[in-house]
Amino acid sequence: MSKSGSPIKQLPQFQYWHQKIETMPRGHLETLQLERLQNMVDRAMLTPFYAPKLKAVGINGSEDIKGLDDLKRIPFTTKNDLRDGFPYGFLSIPKEDVVRLHASSGTTGTPTTIYYSKDDLSRWASYVARCIYGTGCNHGDVFQNMITYGLFTGGLGFHAGAEEVGMMVIPSGSGNTTRQFRLMQDFGTTVVHATPSFLLHVESIMRAEGVSRDSIKLKRAFAGAEPYSEDTRRRIEELLHIDVYNSYGLSEMNGPGVAFECQCKDGLHIWEDGYIPEIVNPDTLEPVPDGEIGELVITILCREATPILRYRTRDLTGFYTEPCACGRTHRRLRRITGRSDDMLIINGVNVFPSQIEEVIMAMKEVGNNYLIEIEKDGVLDKLTVKTEVGPDIFMDDSRPLNSLRERIRKTLQASITINPRVELHESGSLPVSEGKAKRVYDKRPKDV
Amino acid sequence: MSKSGSPIKQLPQFQYWHQKIETMPRGHLETLQLERLQNMVDRAMLTPFYAPKLKAVGINGSEDIKGLDDLKRIPFTTKNDLRDGFPYGFLSIPKEDVVRLHASSGTTGTPTTIYYSKDDLSRWASYVARCIYGTGCNHGDVFQNMITYGLFTGGLGFHAGAEEVGMMVIPSGSGNTTRQFRLMQDFGTTVVHATPSFLLHVESIMRAEGVSRDSIKLKRAFAGAEPYSEDTRRRIEELLHIDVYNSYGLSEMNGPGVAFECQCKDGLHIWEDGYIPEIVNPDTLEPVPDGEIGELVITILCREATPILRYRTRDLTGFYTEPCACGRTHRRLRRITGRSDDMLIINGVNVFPSQIEEVIMAMKEVGNNYLIEIEKDGVLDKLTVKTEVGPDIFMDDSRPLNSLRERIRKTLQASITINPRVELHESGSLPVSEGKAKRVYDKRPKDV
Ligand SMILES: [Zn+2]
Ligand SMILES: [Zn+2]
Repeated sequence: MSKSGSPIKQLPQFQYWHQKIETMPRGHLETLQLERLQNMVDRAMLTPFYAPKLKAVGINGSEDIKGLDDLKRIPFTTKNDLRDGFPYGFLSIPKEDVVRLHASSGTTGTPTTIYYSKDDLSRWASYVARCIYGTGCNHGDVFQNMITYGLFTGGLGFHAGAEEVGMMVIPSGSGNTTRQFRLMQDFGTTVVHATPSFLLHVESIMRAEGVSRDSIKLKRAFAGAEPYSEDTRRRIEELLHIDVYNSYGLSEMNGPGVAFECQCKDGLHIWEDGYIPEIVNPDTLEPVPDGEIGELVITILCREATPILRYRTRDLTGFYTEPCACGRTHRRLRRITGRSDDMLIINGVNVFPSQIEEVIMAMKEVGNNYLIEIEKDGVLDKLTVKTEVGPDIFMDDSRPLNSLRERIRKTLQASITINPRVELHESGSLPVSEGKAKRVYDKRPKDV
Repeated sequence: MSKSGSPIKQLPQFQYWHQKIETMPRGHLETLQLERLQNMVDRAMLTPFYAPKLKAVGINGSEDIKGLDDLKRIPFTTKNDLRDGFPYGFLSIPKEDVVRLHASSGTTGTPTTIYYSKDDLSRWASYVARCIYGTGCNHGDVFQNMITYGLFTGGLGFHAGAEEVGMMVIPSGSGNTTRQFRLMQDFGTTVVHATPSFLLHVESIMRAEGVSRDSIKLKRAFAGAEPYSEDTRRRIEELLHIDVYNSYGLSEMNGPGVAFECQCKDGLHIWEDGYIPEIVNPDTLEPVPDGEIGELVITILCREATPILRYRTRDLTGFYTEPCACGRTHRRLRRITGRSDDMLIINGVNVFPSQIEEVIMAMKEVGNNYLIEIEKDGVLDKLTVKTEVGPDIFMDDSRPLNSLRERIRKTLQASITINPRVELHESGSLPVSEGKAKRVYDKRPKDV
């Protein structure tokens, strides 16, 4: 039985998209990694950004990468480096051979841009297919991709992987919840991809509109694009009676398909034939002891157009040290608890929004949506947590509400050591975003 | 020199994606069509919708299709038939072999749904690639796909074709005009795909925001998804200094890639190796004499998942009777002037919105956006045409405005025989839609 208390009661017959690679002995895997890293370093030498950076540390090409340990000689790459290298500082093939680009939202500031060759796209699709197939899906499934298409990699990335598996893909895109139900009912959707917050929203609307669970055939969901807690996963699983699989990716590493949960739903296998993961202390940049939490750093091993070495993802996670029951040899990452950028400093105390989510989502009386607000109150920071109550709780009965509010406050204080103000809101009354959820509103003046 | 008065002064060196097929002698083309029609009839016999319909007219399979003339024995298929056949009445392969579906907007009423196998998708992409390449684009171009992705076929259809050609595809999606400029400037976009109304909107905003033409490298645009006049094309070409190519497709026939203009920009080659076009009188359903306008009826020749025979598109067009200078042997369709559904009956007179657009867009003082409104005024219908003026015209000087208004009114009356009310609005003040433009507001009570 899986640790997440999921509907899967018994380990299923595991299925592998690329069995030989997914279950490859570690030694072979590392030989493959070295070969590909050497290739990637040669590619990087073709880019304006890396050529001088690598030469500066005495690396002139693959001949200077004798073992995987040489990776540590390579300097880290940051999001700022990607911005500085805009537009073509990281491009290692002729522009005419690029068939796609994805760019992070560039409404303010320079976008970060990743270029793909035709082979890069098919490799990417094949990693996503591996993730999808590993959850037990196959070509008989009906897949509804409830996420934004376009420059964001989540939509087109999952779309291509799902078509590679041969599922019937419904490219429904994000938003329009009522229509999403119609599509699920009309075509017997068995799997969806969405942000966890949109899944919770879908469930709320389903209940509000009286859509019966029996009218849909949903079995699984892939949830990603924003960090979420184990309690949120459990809540979605219980409310919708489905299995929720945790998906991890970032556009700098193609997009989705970097790491994914197998049917054990206990950590995300990062595909080490395509990526070299490291976990470092974000302050010292030294590796953390195996199993401890730190910042995830990734080197992509198979991309022609845009080689990126030792990329600091800002995402906080750690390795599982034990092998997985599924037989895959690729290491598992712990659920991403947040980004080092997300960390809030409230009256001098470090708080991750995920800590707050964990407390809230574990309470049955609490609804599916919440917000975190930080304001300045004189010299002090004031934290307010606004959360919806469940749909069965009436707002006109103040006694149970007061007791719930007090219970949330105390549990939060115990967890984060800060005493928050807690506001309860009627089910469905807090604002919902259709893409990545915006939950943190830091209203403190920036320069104080 | 092209008839549309385009920037192309001299016929270019034509380039063909599938030269052998695109320039195939008519006789060979018809042999190919017959073979594929026979195959398609066998497929149709596998569907719940067609099997009884074809048997009823004595067709039991390909053996009863001896020549292309036998097509006429097959009954027409309408949009209502597609709705009635929902969800699987037109499916001719096992559901597990479907990898994609596209559905028309189903917020009201049953959606019409088209299913695609893996091969269907690659064939579709290859037709779109043929269209794109035929306008002179190649893998060195940078293509910005400024149209909705998702269930609408325009986004994913062009996306796949452009990647097949090997252009650098920027999947920007629709809307967010300011960001679209940024992308064009940042990546040197040379080709865009958009609705004609969005192109006009882009140009207006460019002028309003003072974006210099020299800051973008745009050379071509593919404009489709809504009918537009030759004057609108000319206006976009002159304002943006680009070549605009007319694109035609419909989701029932895959999506974009059914018919497209070549570099002669004088009619749209319909790919007769993939589609059999007929032009019929929409009332009698008899073929119109060659060259005359009627309703376009299409039979798809190469689709495994969803065969559709003799589909009544409702689109009004006719064949050009002369061969094209480009050497392609596939017949050309005239610009679609409207859908038979679009026809307005105003005080008993038939009026197409395209007639009104033609008059307005030919006037230099008129801006890029307009609306048509019909109301009931007692027993009579009242037609109001609201149009923006150009950005250089000031709304506080009433004399030239009155004279312009009068001139528009008279020219419209001469064209449509109805005397409209004309309203002039400030540049940029009429509502803009990001997808297909909504220009006609028929406010008459439905049952009167
Ligand atoms: Zn596993
Ligand atoms: Zn031609």
